[in-house]
Formats: sequence, structure tokens, C-alpha cells
Amino acid sequence: MKKIMNEPQNFVDEVMVGIELAYGDRVRLLDGDKRILVSAYPRKKGKVGIVTAGGSGHLPVFLGYVGSGLLDGCAVGNVFASPSAKKMAAMITACDDGNGVLCLYGNYGGDKMNFAMACEMVEMDDIETMSVLVTDDVASSPRETAEKRRGVAGMVFAFKVAGAAADEMMSLEEVVAVTKKAVSNIRTMGVALSPCIVPEVGKPTFTIEDDELELGMGIHGERGIEVCKMLTANEIADFIFEKIVNDMPLAKGSEVAVMVNGLGATPLEEQILVYSRVASRLKEQGVSVFMPHIGEFATSMEMAGLSITIMKLDEQLKALLRKPASSPFYTSENK
Amino acid sequence: MKKIMNEPQNFVDEVMVGIELAYGDRVRLLDGDKRILVSAYPRKKGKVGIVTAGGSGHLPVFLGYVGSGLLDGCAVGNVFASPSAKKMAAMITACDDGNGVLCLYGNYGGDKMNFAMACEMVEMDDIETMSVLVTDDVASSPRETAEKRRGVAGMVFAFKVAGAAADEMMSLEEVVAVTKKAVSNIRTMGVALSPCIVPEVGKPTFTIEDDELELGMGIHGERGIEVCKMLTANEIADFIFEKIVNDMPLAKGSEVAVMVNGLGATPLEEQILVYSRVASRLKEQGVSVFMPHIGEFATSMEMAGLSITIMKLDEQLKALLRKPASSPFYTSENK
Repeated sequence: MKKIMNEPQNFVDEVMVGIELAYGDRVRLLDGDKRILVSAYPRKKGKVGIVTAGGSGHLPVFLGYVGSGLLDGCAVGNVFASPSAKKMAAMITACDDGNGVLCLYGNYGGDKMNFAMACEMVEMDDIETMSVLVTDDVASSPRETAEKRRGVAGMVFAFKVAGAAADEMMSLEEVVAVTKKAVSNIRTMGVALSPCIVPEVGKPTFTIEDDELELGMGIHGERGIEVCKMLTANEIADFIFEKIVNDMPLAKGSEVAVMVNGLGATPLEEQILVYSRVASRLKEQGVSVFMPHIGEFATSMEMAGLSITIMKLDEQLKALLRKPASSPFYTSENK
Repeated sequence: MKKIMNEPQNFVDEVMVGIELAYGDRVRLLDGDKRILVSAYPRKKGKVGIVTAGGSGHLPVFLGYVGSGLLDGCAVGNVFASPSAKKMAAMITACDDGNGVLCLYGNYGGDKMNFAMACEMVEMDDIETMSVLVTDDVASSPRETAEKRRGVAGMVFAFKVAGAAADEMMSLEEVVAVTKKAVSNIRTMGVALSPCIVPEVGKPTFTIEDDELELGMGIHGERGIEVCKMLTANEIADFIFEKIVNDMPLAKGSEVAVMVNGLGATPLEEQILVYSRVASRLKEQGVSVFMPHIGEFATSMEMAGLSITIMKLDEQLKALLRKPASSPFYTSENK
């Protein structure tokens, strides 16, 4: 495994500069800060701000969802490391337009601690913040302690819902309420076939044997629930599908959004095979799929593997999900 | 290296079924044929048809560009193998609306032979066809024999231009003329860091050493122009950039479209680093970039590596490139 990069210690800064070079008409570095990206799309006056933060190395998460009808800003740290509270506070301040800011992010210790400090810092400037943590990874903690679960690819659906809600000029409390509902309806689980390389480390941070895969592995290589011999596409889909529906039963006649997310090195063709099986299993249960997402939405550099996300919909969530949204990395057209 | 699949011999058929399952509101299998995808988007009456064909294993190429303002149809073969002339003929027939069909495809022996036969077959039904071959890979033949070059990621820009021209209700001759102009203005070159696995073969079809990369490798693993020790992102960008501008000089004050295309396993972050260097080099030369494309547009399964495409623009090409286009795999918004 090799990486296409220059000096490892400049990796994140160079990516940020590149994003502004390519898409400076739509997003920009906040005051030239190479760790803070904010939206340059037109924004409704007084709209609640939606922000996130987290480690680098997961593109399109997190930076890729700064746009219109999505996030207003994002602070990033080094690869797989949280940004500082100070960066977060600067970003929150830039994204407030008088009616408060929702901090919407994955449930990881560093991000939680730094966001808590950042929210305290901006409070002194009378900026109101509320936080919603994404906890969609069913593999990371049992149902009884679901609040301990990590946030993974399902956060993209949460960004979409929160961004649309803010665009509808909901108040901060209303945006929080619907985003919490979305998060409670989202479940994700992934499998990894190979590790990835953090630029400054320079070698894989763990190993998976050539004929094995790890079920339930996290997007930073956190230990999964089982290492087993390689499975077929259908077996992988079935395994994850059952874990998810056991955790969140789906009623006949209900509707869900489905995301099959490539972790980095897994071909789109293989993601489609897994989607196909999930769609068939849902059909068997009388559940219909709205707006399937297949592709790379939340990656772990060049890790091979994928995750499946299912989000239970009601009329409100469906309406927010279908609202047009746009960023340099993600486009959702009105349907 | 492992693949997420079921029976290898069913790989392509299952992918096609999955695409229809996921996106059946926008594309469909022609009469249920698992090798022919046609657009289900609304289509202007009498519009010239735009079609392509080629081997599977390159998603989003080719199937991913069947949509609105893009291709009307696409026939695919097994992984890295041409579809039959019969499938191509059925697709051409389905995509004709009385004013002829442009067959727009990469310059490969099998596709060329089969398209020639297919065009003869439909001629008996009075369907007019014209063909344009994409020959953008500067590494595959010297400038003196540029007509022998292979078609690679640059074909996406050709699809976009041809699709927009047809949507403007140009005649077949006019669509051919502007598409030929586009092709003559497109140059691409790639580098590979790792091989890929064809499902039915089950193991990598070639090897690249752990500390090496291959410059100019084709998207099926065709031999490149040089194997060398691993380079930095800037060195890779510089090497390709110079090959391209030596082959197609760019005047100060001119405008180009740029695509940095991941071949499968290369993270988006790394593609952005390469884009960044290309953009800087162009700026130095007084050349501006219009609509940068960074991501996976034409892959080789899980091959690691990337390609750079530069397309010289004039007012007509720019206007066609910027027209809105949409498919399940590609969206271009009006700017």
C-alpha cells in the first residue's frame, strides 16, 4: 500500500487548500484557516446554523457536506483526530446568524470534549448552541447502551435532515427535535476487508488476513464484533441487515432510506451487489426504499469494505430528505 | 485482495439488476436484457440518440452516464470485455428517434469491431449512425499516431458535450462535429499503484512492487510508459501535466476543464492533492480552470491510482459542458 501525497505532516492542510482551489466559488476557508471550511452558498437571513467537526481522512465526510441545505461549516483535525475547541468555536461563531447553531457530530470522545468547550467559549459571546450526537453504529455497543454507539455513515442522513430543517427556517429547538428523531431512526453497520494508512504513520494500523473480513469494524479501525472467513456479497448484506432489523424492527408497509457506503477501496459494482440484496430483503418484508444512496459518502482513506445504513422514515423526515441540497461533493435533486 | 461478490460468472448481470432496482425510476434494462441499460428520463422528440458500449468494471463508466443530457443507452460486456454486436444493435435501435444515433466510445479493438457490425445491422432498418472514437490517453501512442490512442476517463467530457449537443436538437452531423472537436481537445494520462482483480479470474492480472508505480498504465492494466519508484503527489501531477501540455500546448489566457479521476482505491484526499498541483501549474501558465471534476468517474475496479484529464475549451464547448445533466451516478448543475 502506497499513498499519493507530499509531506505527510502537510497532508490535511494541502487537502484544505485544494478544496478551496477547486470549489472556492461554493465553499471557503474561514479567514484562510486551513482547518475550517464554511459555506459560500447564498444563505437565508436568520437561518439556524448547522455545523460539524471531526478528524480528516473520511471524505466526503465531513467537509464534503458543507453546502446549501446541508452544513454551514466544518472544522477538521489531523487524520482521525479531533480539531481543537478553539477552531470549533471560531467556526460556530462564523455560522451563527443570531438564531443559534446546531452542533451535529459523531459520538467520539475527543469531538465531544472539544465541542463542549467550544460551546462554552461561544456562550460568552451570547451565541446559543445545542448539540446532537450521531450514534448509528449498531456494532459499537448493545441496544441497552445505545447512547454509547459511535457515529458513522448514517451521519450523512442526519446532516441532510438538519440542513433541510434549518433551510425551512425552523427554530433551533425545532431543528434539534427533528434531527434527534432522525438519529434515533438511523442504524448502520460496516465490514472491513483491509486496513488503511494514516499519512503520518505510514503503515497500516492493523491487519486483516487475506481470506478474512472483520464484521462491525469502525471507520478508524475500531475493533468489530467478529473476524471471519470471507463471505459473499449476499452473506454480508444478510448479516448486517439482520443486525439492523433486530435492533430497529421495520413494520410492513413502512418506508426507509438506504445507504450502501464504500469505505474507500471497494468498487461501486460490489456496493451495488450488496444494495441489491438489501433491497430484496426489504421488499420481502413489505418495506419500500426511498432515495437509495450507493457510493462513497464516509470513507476511511483506502480501507476496503462497506457499510449499510437504514433510516426509518415518516412524512416529515421524508419531506426533509427529499429537499434539494448541494455541495461540491454531494447533490440531491428534487424528486 | 478480496472481492465482495456472489458467483463470479453472475457478477455483471447482478450489477445490472441492482442498478435497475436502485434507480429504476431513471434508467431501465431494455426489455429486461441484463446487458443493455437505457434512459427513462423524459426525452425531447426527435433528439439524436447518444450511445456507448464497453466492458464492465469501470463504474461510473459506462452505465453511469445513461441519463438526461448525457447518454441515451449503453451496452456492456463482461468485466473488461466488449459486448456483442447484437446487443449494441438492439441498444442503437431503442435509442433512435428518427434522426440517427451517435456511437461514442473508447478506441479498443473489440468495441470497434462490434460497433461496426452493429451499425451495419441497424442500417438495414434505415437507422442512420455515425461514430466518434475517444482517443484521449496520451501514454498509449505517440503524437504522430494519435489516432491509435486508447479512450480513458476523458470520454466522460465527450459524453457530456455530445449529450448536451443532442439536447439542443442539433442534427447528427452537427453533434458529430462538436463531439469530434471535443475529443481532439481532450488529453488524459494515468498512473497505477496497484492492480485489480477481474471477478472470473480471481487474482490480480499483473503486479506492481510495493515501492513502485506505473506511469501511463491503461484502465485494463495495459502496459504504461515507465515503472519507477513511488513519487510524491506533486511529482505525479507534474509528470502527467508536462506530458499533456507537451502534446497539447495551452495558450496563456485560455480556459480548460480538468478532471482528476480516481481509479478505484485512491482516497479523494489524495486526488485533491494532485488537483491542487495541476491547478497551480495552470495558473502559472495563465490558464484558468472551468468546472473541475475530482472523484471517481472511470475506474478499474479496485485499482489504486488516478488519471488527469485536461480539455481545452472554446465558447461552444464551455456552453455545452455547463448545461445541466443528470444520471443516477453523475449530476452537473447549471452554474
